[in-house]
Amino acid sequence: MKRFELISLDADDTLWHNESIFTSTQSQFCKLLGRYHTMEWIEQRLYETEKANLQHFGYGVKGFTLSMIETAIELTEGRVTAAEVQHILELGRAMLRAPVDLLDGVAETVIELSKSHRLILLTKGDLFDQESKLARSGLGEHFSAVEIVSEKRAATYAAVMKRQGVTPDQFVMVGNSLRSDVLPVLEAGASAVHIPYHTTWKHEHVDEAEMDGKQFARLKSFRELPAWLD
Amino acid sequence: MKRFELISLDADDTLWHNESIFTSTQSQFCKLLGRYHTMEWIEQRLYETEKANLQHFGYGVKGFTLSMIETAIELTEGRVTAAEVQHILELGRAMLRAPVDLLDGVAETVIELSKSHRLILLTKGDLFDQESKLARSGLGEHFSAVEIVSEKRAATYAAVMKRQGVTPDQFVMVGNSLRSDVLPVLEAGASAVHIPYHTTWKHEHVDEAEMDGKQFARLKSFRELPAWLD
Repeated sequence: MKRFELISLDADDTLWHNESIFTSTQSQFCKLLGRYHTMEWIEQRLYETEKANLQHFGYGVKGFTLSMIETAIELTEGRVTAAEVQHILELGRAMLRAPVDLLDGVAETVIELSKSHRLILLTKGDLFDQESKLARSGLGEHFSAVEIVSEKRAATYAAVMKRQGVTPDQFVMVGNSLRSDVLPVLEAGASAVHIPYHTTWKHEHVDEAEMDGKQFARLKSFRELPAWLD
Repeated sequence: MKRFELISLDADDTLWHNESIFTSTQSQFCKLLGRYHTMEWIEQRLYETEKANLQHFGYGVKGFTLSMIETAIELTEGRVTAAEVQHILELGRAMLRAPVDLLDGVAETVIELSKSHRLILLTKGDLFDQESKLARSGLGEHFSAVEIVSEKRAATYAAVMKRQGVTPDQFVMVGNSLRSDVLPVLEAGASAVHIPYHTTWKHEHVDEAEMDGKQFARLKSFRELPAWLD
């Protein structure tokens, strides 16, 4: 007997590297503005701009690029040059073109799981960018559905389960973010598996204390998923 | 007997004004750069940048804003000031905040249609922005599903029909774009209703000659839809 009818996989930092691309772009951005301010101050201001813009832009590279430009103008009090803005546009474009770099063990494990289970991809972020990454990942054919959502809330998971025709006890979500892939899933009455990525975007951070008394699994690597399911 | 099981409605320029917001922003952009070049030249270069960027950015306001910034830098050969770039960011933000202005007759007609038919919203563009507009439109509850896609191709329509459990003869698409809402729908074997908007983005333009011999309906206003369905 299968424990779950439907396995739902997060994409960024669960199947492929993502936060590391943001982190490295951010370092280049700080370097670019290094003659105006310290790294720490630039990083902090960029994060504040990003956070304030989330409600207008949502997640993704295009919004992040706009936030970098806005931060550069503010931080330099308008002294930033067109060449520097051009450089920031290039940083954004490079992110969109970055190769899709699968995490260790993902390719073979997704194939293995797809033989025994119905798999869906459930990710938030920019529709166009996520579809492009999925296509480039070569994993697309193993998913019976792809759901790209603007936020992962309990209601989002309830709607996905309804659309996919499963009940909460038949559904398990697997992802790297406690905030997006675990807490709202538990709230929706379903199961969750947490596979931490080596770095977490500040905005997704959840204090471990918040997880006290919550029932979910934690694995070290995506490779461990089939054994956990058995 | 109902002629169609599922009515699929496009959103931008079918339910609410959209292209007019882009057109007006574009005028402001041309005015902003008026001291560097003529309106015509700025418009043409902006369109070329937009078109080249579509493959990286997809549709939507964020990509358009990045294209405006890129065009400004190129057109001014780097002389554009940070204040001008800031102004362009403001133009983009104003677009995202623009009130959702329903086309004439849409509110009552959508309610009327929803009483007799299953309605879905099928739109391309930026996920976050489209969801926000739908929420602000007040029409959300009348749709049984919302599909936001990155491109409207024949395969997109085939996938939507499959997901929604209807055959091509049970499906009709209603929209303002021959290129996105009519041609690929006919190619997928379903029916299409064209309701032209007073202005069409160059990229969506289709020569009338291309429509020769194609079977589809054309209505003057969204209000005429219930009568056409009867």
